[in-house]
Amino acid sequence: MAGSIFGTLFRMTTWGETHGKGVGVVVDGCPAGLSLCKEDVQKYLNRRKPGQSKYTTKRKEDDQVEILSGVFEGKTTGTPISMAVFNKDQHSKDYSAIKDVYRPGHADYTFDKKYGFRDYRGGGRSSGRETTARVAAGAVAAKALEELGIEIFAYTKAIGPVQIDSSRFSKEERDKNALYMPDVQAAAQAEAYLQEKMRELDSSGGIVECVITGMPVGIGEPVFDKLSANLGKAILSIGAVKGFEIGDGFAAAQSVGSENNDDFYNHNGKIEKKTNHAGGILGGMSDGSVITFRAAFKPTPSIAQPQQTVNREGEDTEIVIHGRHDPIIVPRAVVVVETMAAVTVLDLLLQNMGSSLEGVKNFYRSDKK
Amino acid sequence: MAGSIFGTLFRMTTWGETHGKGVGVVVDGCPAGLSLCKEDVQKYLNRRKPGQSKYTTKRKEDDQVEILSGVFEGKTTGTPISMAVFNKDQHSKDYSAIKDVYRPGHADYTFDKKYGFRDYRGGGRSSGRETTARVAAGAVAAKALEELGIEIFAYTKAIGPVQIDSSRFSKEERDKNALYMPDVQAAAQAEAYLQEKMRELDSSGGIVECVITGMPVGIGEPVFDKLSANLGKAILSIGAVKGFEIGDGFAAAQSVGSENNDDFYNHNGKIEKKTNHAGGILGGMSDGSVITFRAAFKPTPSIAQPQQTVNREGEDTEIVIHGRHDPIIVPRAVVVVETMAAVTVLDLLLQNMGSSLEGVKNFYRSDKK
Amino acid sequence: MAGSIFGTLFRMTTWGETHGKGVGVVVDGCPAGLSLCKEDVQKYLNRRKPGQSKYTTKRKEDDQVEILSGVFEGKTTGTPISMAVFNKDQHSKDYSAIKDVYRPGHADYTFDKKYGFRDYRGGGRSSGRETTARVAAGAVAAKALEELGIEIFAYTKAIGPVQIDSSRFSKEERDKNALYMPDVQAAAQAEAYLQEKMRELDSSGGIVECVITGMPVGIGEPVFDKLSANLGKAILSIGAVKGFEIGDGFAAAQSVGSENNDDFYNHNGKIEKKTNHAGGILGGMSDGSVITFRAAFKPTPSIAQPQQTVNREGEDTEIVIHGRHDPIIVPRAVVVVETMAAVTVLDLLLQNMGSSLEGVKNFYRSDKK
Amino acid sequence: MAGSIFGTLFRMTTWGETHGKGVGVVVDGCPAGLSLCKEDVQKYLNRRKPGQSKYTTKRKEDDQVEILSGVFEGKTTGTPISMAVFNKDQHSKDYSAIKDVYRPGHADYTFDKKYGFRDYRGGGRSSGRETTARVAAGAVAAKALEELGIEIFAYTKAIGPVQIDSSRFSKEERDKNALYMPDVQAAAQAEAYLQEKMRELDSSGGIVECVITGMPVGIGEPVFDKLSANLGKAILSIGAVKGFEIGDGFAAAQSVGSENNDDFYNHNGKIEKKTNHAGGILGGMSDGSVITFRAAFKPTPSIAQPQQTVNREGEDTEIVIHGRHDPIIVPRAVVVVETMAAVTVLDLLLQNMGSSLEGVKNFYRSDKK
Repeated sequence: MAGSIFGTLFRMTTWGETHGKGVGVVVDGCPAGLSLCKEDVQKYLNRRKPGQSKYTTKRKEDDQVEILSGVFEGKTTGTPISMAVFNKDQHSKDYSAIKDVYRPGHADYTFDKKYGFRDYRGGGRSSGRETTARVAAGAVAAKALEELGIEIFAYTKAIGPVQIDSSRFSKEERDKNALYMPDVQAAAQAEAYLQEKMRELDSSGGIVECVITGMPVGIGEPVFDKLSANLGKAILSIGAVKGFEIGDGFAAAQSVGSENNDDFYNHNGKIEKKTNHAGGILGGMSDGSVITFRAAFKPTPSIAQPQQTVNREGEDTEIVIHGRHDPIIVPRAVVVVETMAAVTVLDLLLQNMGSSLEGVKNFYRSDKK
Repeated sequence: MAGSIFGTLFRMTTWGETHGKGVGVVVDGCPAGLSLCKEDVQKYLNRRKPGQSKYTTKRKEDDQVEILSGVFEGKTTGTPISMAVFNKDQHSKDYSAIKDVYRPGHADYTFDKKYGFRDYRGGGRSSGRETTARVAAGAVAAKALEELGIEIFAYTKAIGPVQIDSSRFSKEERDKNALYMPDVQAAAQAEAYLQEKMRELDSSGGIVECVITGMPVGIGEPVFDKLSANLGKAILSIGAVKGFEIGDGFAAAQSVGSENNDDFYNHNGKIEKKTNHAGGILGGMSDGSVITFRAAFKPTPSIAQPQQTVNREGEDTEIVIHGRHDPIIVPRAVVVVETMAAVTVLDLLLQNMGSSLEGVKNFYRSDKK
Repeated sequence: MAGSIFGTLFRMTTWGETHGKGVGVVVDGCPAGLSLCKEDVQKYLNRRKPGQSKYTTKRKEDDQVEILSGVFEGKTTGTPISMAVFNKDQHSKDYSAIKDVYRPGHADYTFDKKYGFRDYRGGGRSSGRETTARVAAGAVAAKALEELGIEIFAYTKAIGPVQIDSSRFSKEERDKNALYMPDVQAAAQAEAYLQEKMRELDSSGGIVECVITGMPVGIGEPVFDKLSANLGKAILSIGAVKGFEIGDGFAAAQSVGSENNDDFYNHNGKIEKKTNHAGGILGGMSDGSVITFRAAFKPTPSIAQPQQTVNREGEDTEIVIHGRHDPIIVPRAVVVVETMAAVTVLDLLLQNMGSSLEGVKNFYRSDKK
Repeated sequence: MAGSIFGTLFRMTTWGETHGKGVGVVVDGCPAGLSLCKEDVQKYLNRRKPGQSKYTTKRKEDDQVEILSGVFEGKTTGTPISMAVFNKDQHSKDYSAIKDVYRPGHADYTFDKKYGFRDYRGGGRSSGRETTARVAAGAVAAKALEELGIEIFAYTKAIGPVQIDSSRFSKEERDKNALYMPDVQAAAQAEAYLQEKMRELDSSGGIVECVITGMPVGIGEPVFDKLSANLGKAILSIGAVKGFEIGDGFAAAQSVGSENNDDFYNHNGKIEKKTNHAGGILGGMSDGSVITFRAAFKPTPSIAQPQQTVNREGEDTEIVIHGRHDPIIVPRAVVVVETMAAVTVLDLLLQNMGSSLEGVKNFYRSDKK
């Protein structure tokens, strides 16, 4: 399996290389009757567009999405939704510098070894541009979840050593700064840090955090298709992600049971938890409380400093990567995390519908209305 | 999908509850011609058996595996390998204490809400005993990988605040102490820490680390089925795992590109990397260097202290969990991590065989010999 | 993929060889809350048991099923249902006659070439005994469908040249004769025909027909996972099946549109069809009328006449197959067809639940009750 | 699952409605290094293009394919191959006649019931135009198979009562007549028959036959993913197909074992079969001889005669379908059968590579070269 398909009931198939004709996605299994227009998708794509600030490439990708199928009279029909973002200009740049040389931290070498050769133009299929297609599919999933009262909200939690402070957390703030940080003060510090890295011709890593609210209880399948496991796969499939944690994550490894267990209690007639170290997932299923997870992104591998490497013949050489590159991946990845989570949650939510015979019987008794 | 199937070409289907007739697994897609006997599987199961030390439950599960199909004259036949561990005694214990009460940190509540009711005996399907089946399947995968020169080695990296010291790392030491720590000194400290927690009627979390050596280059599919993403899903599907990281993991988020990039160089005619911050995976594919990853386990949720919770009617109540429970999950989970990694790697390795037309042509030209 | 897993949401994994320790199946994804006991499954298995008449092997397979997991207090729990039929005696017979010789019409040769060797005892995995496991899984599906008002009923339509006459069709008659024919007169003729074939040391082919009643409209997914396509795969995966047709089937190829189209009409306020050439499926989806399909079975390949063949070295030789073999596969296959259809229909019925957003919203609004 | 994805390792995802912006397909898992250009695909599409003769619609669909990704410097790269055929003009025709009325023999009614509404323009997703996308994907598979020495050849076997005569079979003849019949005499008779049907404002059914040569032994997985079962699903997923048979098919049901068994013999040092009633498949695996199968197509449901039906409110009404429609589906379906078979065979061929450990070891020992 070449692995460009994700999901079981709500499934996306992505295609496209960074310097080819465009990138796109086919969404199979979206429920019929969802209001959907280009703008619903475009607003998500705009969040990962380059050229928005000095921390993202100046390259002006227009990233205008086209919906090619699956929508009729403003609603999804239940058939595949094909979406594409076509490249405006495919000018043939000079790739001689990277054609036969393996860039450190990139997939050039592994692609060549796996397939015998590669599309060397700007990383081909391994480029961050591939995530455009995921975001388009995820925008559809997010819209469907919204109708079910489920909201997914991701943001930059850390850039290098600069972390947001939860006491200053402001949802509204996120979209007001170029770094998508929900803490105006941390955003300012992070900007200073990034400018320093840019002066040093270097790049920085960072952390994205995501919260999901409004989840019904019981989403996720025990054993292999746990909500936590599927979210983990979804997020770890984003290039540059090196770590994933749910709830307290690695901190739980240093905790004790009496601390880490979240006691249940009756809160105005509803079963709730006093704390949420578990991050909203028990036994792989949503427990009705807020779901929280984090993803660690490595620093942008394309840096302007000279680096030691080898060419295709295995000879030692030096490489200098030209062109403008983001000094940090994280801000543009926020929307990718958010939409990958949306796809995963919707997929498991649809699978959950057959969990109990009583539910199945009621569904068919009411004739799917 | 109830989610008890894992894999695409090498697939395992697990079954069984902790206090039912037994647990088992069916392995579909194992290549034919692999030497396999009960002992090959049993030696892996023994590593997760309880009753081995004071840090694991005294319950004497005998865990003797039976191979029910798929092996003929000592070799796998290419047909499904069914394996089971039958329970010796299914004495009806008194479960009244937990039958109608939700244990904090367990899946009792989410199971009830998802399915309408649950097998309340000892956690049912959510019990750690389910991993017995995974280990049996993984033992088969590990044996096949061994024939291909690939070795997977996991161990306890940390217990609560006690970490192993890489300068004292000794592979042989791992199997000599009850905690499966490859550092005799850290093991002693961890034992002291655990005894303290036991006195406090508490439990501890910890970290398992895993290294994979001998990997060919190019295993893993770009985009969604990255080796890192599939390993992440495999490991995060183990109950109690709250975090996963590859290579430098979360530390990479605080690093800079000039540090984090691993330079390539020519090492005696072979392309190698000077460092391995990436943990052996580039662009989702193995890069030929050692693969390293870590998993964070939460503390055992079953503790002997009284805890606040609710019953099925949503009324506040207190619960005291009786019986002997491991104060730490990690030591017995080491072999689970190792075998889940084996299943994941073998599955992607088989998928990789069709990557290039040249490879496919040569395969059929030589008539699969 | 070794291909021993079937289904997407309701999935079965079968295992076992004819002369091994037994055969079994794991059902993953069965809705929770279905009343299920051993007898529910056993009554289906009894229908394919040998030794029931002179047209089935005298070998007394006891075929007593055991439910090993997934059922608690008489109800399915939503977790995998493992079932097994263990062999009573695994006496080592003398297989020297077939060990190194390829029986015509059997899979001996193809198994050897694919896997390098084979379990030569009685056909191993390719034996009809493998279908025991399918029937067990299908019995569970059939019981769930029954709760939804859906009934699946298969029967012998033809044995060699002898066909049932629809004017004499009697549902009750089916289980009264050894051939499972719902026409007492045809059954008598078919018996005479079979006895003649037995005297000639020969065997006969035949046809199984199946009708499904009570189907909701819209089950089946347009394009690849059409109800007709998935039923076709299910039935064609039964060994010895060489043909499959829905509704008028091959006769439709000789028909004209004005005949073959089924006109819709208002029947007491309900939309119905005046005829049913389509066999209850339009555009791959159930149309609310009765579903009908047929499967063609080849004659039993094991016959007592001497046959020309080759051995493993490719040398010409003669083979005489000893032992008692059914002169016809069809009567015992009736229940296999019925249960494979049940699995297919339930699987698509569960997938259908997410078809429209309105249905999904109502489902979660009512909290799966 | 909306079911627009087909395959396990070589997978296609199709999209598009007949009167939307176009139709397309994404092929995931095609081996890298296959020479591929637009013309390789276009020549297959041309065979299903309308407007080629008086037996196909006059509508001039230009059907020019564009390859949007996955090919670089004339070769497949191993990444998804996205292909699309965009519609030139999407003129808004007047659909009022069929908008609220259910055409007999079409999927209008089932679509409406499943999804709540439908894209009523010309059948939407259920139109034969959807097969354009399959043919494009299958053209890629066929080209890869060609490199492995495997050829798939389909043709019209029967139109209504007119069948080809095997004694007059001529491969070259197939592409010389509008009906794709490999028998010039039968083609003339069939033309006369069709013209009669057209005068009667009626349509005809027919049969497509397909032969596959050059297959290695052992392709197909025993049990569920038999080559015969997967071919059956592939072919039965084509709209209008009502029957499928392998080798002797339904005739085998009337045969006897001594006739139907194909004896093996040594033919110049190779194991071959004296006859081929099995159609090249034993135990679900290719046996090295020629594979033959047939598909029965119903008559075109769109006929110009007035037909009785109901509208969306369930009221009885009459419908007259205007516009030019093919009086027979078969000729244009020949290439669809051929390409669906190609996709199925390549998919199983890739899966087969991991069948034996010896094969896997040799593959990795030789470093995939």
